[in-house]
Amino acid sequence: MTGRTHDERLHDRKFVRTFFTSPTAVEGEDESAKMIRSASGLRGMQAPDVWVPDNEDATAPSMRDEGAENIVEVLAENGAEFPGEVHPRVVWHRDSPATRYQGFQHMLEIADPENGAVEHLDGFVIPEVGGIDDWKKADEFFTIVEEAHGLDEGSLAMSVIIESGAAELAMGELREEMGKPTNNLERLFMLVDGEVDYTKDMRAITPTGNLPPWPELRHNTSRGASAAGLIAVDGPYDDIRDVEGYRERMTDNQAKGMLGIWSLTPGQVVEANRSPLPPEDGSWLLDDGTQQVELDEQGDTQVYGGDRLSLAESGDSYVLAVGGDEQELDEDGLREELLDRAEYVPSMDDIVDSMEEFEAAREAGTGAIAMERSATLAIDGVEVDISNDRMWDEATYQAAMTPVSLFQDVYENRPDQHDDLAEMYGESVVNRAIDVGT
Amino acid sequence: MTGRTHDERLHDRKFVRTFFTSPTAVEGEDESAKMIRSASGLRGMQAPDVWVPDNEDATAPSMRDEGAENIVEVLAENGAEFPGEVHPRVVWHRDSPATRYQGFQHMLEIADPENGAVEHLDGFVIPEVGGIDDWKKADEFFTIVEEAHGLDEGSLAMSVIIESGAAELAMGELREEMGKPTNNLERLFMLVDGEVDYTKDMRAITPTGNLPPWPELRHNTSRGASAAGLIAVDGPYDDIRDVEGYRERMTDNQAKGMLGIWSLTPGQVVEANRSPLPPEDGSWLLDDGTQQVELDEQGDTQVYGGDRLSLAESGDSYVLAVGGDEQELDEDGLREELLDRAEYVPSMDDIVDSMEEFEAAREAGTGAIAMERSATLAIDGVEVDISNDRMWDEATYQAAMTPVSLFQDVYENRPDQHDDLAEMYGESVVNRAIDVGT
Amino acid sequence: MTGRTHDERLHDRKFVRTFFTSPTAVEGEDESAKMIRSASGLRGMQAPDVWVPDNEDATAPSMRDEGAENIVEVLAENGAEFPGEVHPRVVWHRDSPATRYQGFQHMLEIADPENGAVEHLDGFVIPEVGGIDDWKKADEFFTIVEEAHGLDEGSLAMSVIIESGAAELAMGELREEMGKPTNNLERLFMLVDGEVDYTKDMRAITPTGNLPPWPELRHNTSRGASAAGLIAVDGPYDDIRDVEGYRERMTDNQAKGMLGIWSLTPGQVVEANRSPLPPEDGSWLLDDGTQQVELDEQGDTQVYGGDRLSLAESGDSYVLAVGGDEQELDEDGLREELLDRAEYVPSMDDIVDSMEEFEAAREAGTGAIAMERSATLAIDGVEVDISNDRMWDEATYQAAMTPVSLFQDVYENRPDQHDDLAEMYGESVVNRAIDVGT
Repeated sequence: MTGRTHDERLHDRKFVRTFFTSPTAVEGEDESAKMIRSASGLRGMQAPDVWVPDNEDATAPSMRDEGAENIVEVLAENGAEFPGEVHPRVVWHRDSPATRYQGFQHMLEIADPENGAVEHLDGFVIPEVGGIDDWKKADEFFTIVEEAHGLDEGSLAMSVIIESGAAELAMGELREEMGKPTNNLERLFMLVDGEVDYTKDMRAITPTGNLPPWPELRHNTSRGASAAGLIAVDGPYDDIRDVEGYRERMTDNQAKGMLGIWSLTPGQVVEANRSPLPPEDGSWLLDDGTQQVELDEQGDTQVYGGDRLSLAESGDSYVLAVGGDEQELDEDGLREELLDRAEYVPSMDDIVDSMEEFEAAREAGTGAIAMERSATLAIDGVEVDISNDRMWDEATYQAAMTPVSLFQDVYENRPDQHDDLAEMYGESVVNRAIDVGT
Repeated sequence: MTGRTHDERLHDRKFVRTFFTSPTAVEGEDESAKMIRSASGLRGMQAPDVWVPDNEDATAPSMRDEGAENIVEVLAENGAEFPGEVHPRVVWHRDSPATRYQGFQHMLEIADPENGAVEHLDGFVIPEVGGIDDWKKADEFFTIVEEAHGLDEGSLAMSVIIESGAAELAMGELREEMGKPTNNLERLFMLVDGEVDYTKDMRAITPTGNLPPWPELRHNTSRGASAAGLIAVDGPYDDIRDVEGYRERMTDNQAKGMLGIWSLTPGQVVEANRSPLPPEDGSWLLDDGTQQVELDEQGDTQVYGGDRLSLAESGDSYVLAVGGDEQELDEDGLREELLDRAEYVPSMDDIVDSMEEFEAAREAGTGAIAMERSATLAIDGVEVDISNDRMWDEATYQAAMTPVSLFQDVYENRPDQHDDLAEMYGESVVNRAIDVGT
Repeated sequence: MTGRTHDERLHDRKFVRTFFTSPTAVEGEDESAKMIRSASGLRGMQAPDVWVPDNEDATAPSMRDEGAENIVEVLAENGAEFPGEVHPRVVWHRDSPATRYQGFQHMLEIADPENGAVEHLDGFVIPEVGGIDDWKKADEFFTIVEEAHGLDEGSLAMSVIIESGAAELAMGELREEMGKPTNNLERLFMLVDGEVDYTKDMRAITPTGNLPPWPELRHNTSRGASAAGLIAVDGPYDDIRDVEGYRERMTDNQAKGMLGIWSLTPGQVVEANRSPLPPEDGSWLLDDGTQQVELDEQGDTQVYGGDRLSLAESGDSYVLAVGGDEQELDEDGLREELLDRAEYVPSMDDIVDSMEEFEAAREAGTGAIAMERSATLAIDGVEVDISNDRMWDEATYQAAMTPVSLFQDVYENRPDQHDDLAEMYGESVVNRAIDVGT
């Protein structure tokens, strides 16, 4: 966690899947550090890429001095073995010098080498930032802390919570500000959306009190991360019971380039560590006119089990009904229609196959090749063979590389997850995925 | 309407629900001021938070000098009694110095103390602004008008219509520009979207000629308002007959933090004054797989009346069908499933209850409490009890405060609506809502 | 293609519907220039508004020097007769000085008057730009090329591909940067989204590997074009077989003000040249609760042929069922309900009619008039007459002008399409459309 390289993203981790917060001091317990002591013991898929002992909102204001001490104590004891990075959240507010001063004091204490925690500390998370000048104030405090404790300038990473319109706008200025000799903003690492406070700051209202989806905020955070070599992370998903909803949110985020998400429980950590990794098995989807339905693989056949689509054969022709609308088609017409409705979700194995195939073609001097994908679909017992060609060129290859690069980053930085990955994908796929594209 | 305070939002009104425009001079009438004279008599829920005698698009170019005179005349007569703020719209265009000069002359005339209208005047609305330098030109004219007439610098509020891509971009610079000693942009008050001209400026085309929804513009306007302490207002909704569509647009806007909207008729004013206020009665919604259906309260039971969901009991188990897809569930499974599909829309009374409960817990040293909400649902005669816990912490409390703060702002500034509010909510709820959170 | 005027958009073309790329040099063919030689022969609806001999991604790296020579050769031969503008894409990358230097050399060669191509050359397309300083580097190379070859400063247009978060942000600064005396950024012409590389740069992942829809990027590109007097063009639509999907994408783009799109084949060029032009015939749409269904004109009646809506008459009342939900209505209620569900898509003829009518009314001193649109709808054999009034004022008129201005721009600049346009609309409609609003 030292020795930063200077490639595009400056930090050790090029991807962060999980941002897991724990209260630093809980009142009324035998031991107030109970929660973070427990979290420090997480390993494997339950352990986050980034662990955030949360000395802000998750911890009562009266307990925060004790919280800072607890962070020091637990990190000094267990930090060496913790498999993820550690970025405590301290207090900060764009509108309150008192809060900022308190956050500065906590940073000074936690990073003090005499306390024995700093060698296991990767940075701090700063909440409630405003415009870019407010970010610079926080950066300056990092620099002062580093100076005071003889640490290398820029060695502590800074991440921020985007929870105001002003902070959202500031993300558009990072690229320009980060190079200036008057700051050390190159220490920036994660841009993390905080939708509860953002909703308050934007004064938004929904009838049920649920959070608005804020698609533009998430786009702008992802874009800000892209333009400045940072990592975009979405905020907490409050309904812990709703695993399906959490997964849908992550799929939506991933299509925006936001590959990380806040986790509130080890169960959410497991879900979020797995979500951006390609699936173990490929699957076919069929569009029934209202949604994409996953087909059921039975032997060599992909079976549709819903009731919106129906298909009947009569002599040389077919009748396909979609939600009651019938059309009569010949065999080619039917194949064409089903091809339009079908899509394949490739497995990790499939992705590595395609990339290796493209690499071989490229080496042989070919710039674009067709990747074929075939299947036998069955609807109401009628079987239809379909086959789809997709052109792959250099750009397709590069875009397909994203989940593989993420996998490689995980593999390199999280040896504690090697067993889980081997169990998911098999050793052979893992080994090929590590090598491809490098 | 004098004596601005200097808290976060600098103006008397922290919220504006309604922005009602009236033509200032109508040709061919006995009295050309007829429309604004009539509007100046509006009271209660029919009276807008902001009234805009419109000396731009609503008034024929040839009538605008007379329109400026009419504004003076009507304000001098009826301004003292008008319950909302008054912000006439004058002419302006980023591309036409002649238009800008005409707007300046009208402002000079309307604000002239000798004409007796200025003491009832809160500011002006400037349409068709371009980049930030164009906004500064308008601001400078306000300053000159104030200087010429011995008014305090910054005492006239400036609001703008966002109806060009350039103006949309300028909203990102306000926070930085507003503090500079070379302008008085702190006078800025409302950012108002003007989608008809924006559509023209963006050169957008829709098959029917309807306006595009422009979700990004509305987000950016709301964000600009948030970052600079201003108030975001949506543009006109042309289809006056379509009350349901107007309501849906407002609900959509509110989820973006845009709590105000243009109104073209007193009927729209009534709708828009009520829309962001919490409902009188709470209600349950049930997701039928395609939409959320409001349940019908019959005694203590919430009855589902649609036909997409069906439920049957057989011995110890239940069969729930959603649009034809059946699943068999035990009692706990059914409860879980329905809990996932059900949501509660709290009333003003409910919101105040929850806030008071949280305040009491916080005073007793508890940072987070569970709020329980129970109901008996009935589908096809089968009754199921469900109960939902939601965690409230400081952030939840703060976010829930937005509609209550809006209510308090209305209550303080619109005594003419006290009777309507008491009739809606009852005196007791009104009195508790005024006190909570302050 | 010389003599730029200085109105709002500085270039000859105020609209670009089609951006058609061709590989400049294909390995293993008898003649490596085969593809661009063939493209240079396109005429009429198959010929794009902008043709882009693509010396970047469509051409293998090893073939690009030959590609530059091919461009020169084909342009010198066939450029004079080509009906669209010609903007070759050269190589460029924000992160690679070697790539930028190669692009500069290709520009120098292609624009060299001794090679005989420059008089048929309108500009160059620069891919992979980053922040605004990177755009300025490219602009400076244009200036040097112009200087070296004795061309007027600014005479070569510059277009860019937006395929990074940094470039997306740079579009917000154009308006301010374009006026500065230290650059010639007024040469900017098209802003073209490149979603494949953008997806890679944003590190987005989708389960199927399909491109995300990126609505915010397209909005921001359109806004950037609007604020700086440029032209917004969407990226390639890979699934060439999917004509319906291509059309839907264009309709979605047009509602964002993005009226141009990349075309990969002459077939896509035909589709994209026609898409933003108003239809030959008007049509009625009816909302069936899930989508808008086009009605079938049979004589004077608009017949609904779907099965979600059903209508029955019984005595004085009607029963209308929408997806199973029945309501009983009297004749006025039914008319109201159907009026809410019906919308008209006007033809070019209809649009010109309405504009002429408004112009006449305006000349007679009327600022707003009601345009009536009537139809007889038939559902399950029951006929209902509906009639819709829409108010037209100056703003409506201006917004309706967009497709007509596009038509006029096409008519002026593409004489090779006159026959196609006359065949589509009839001579008389074409002649009226040329004159209206000018």
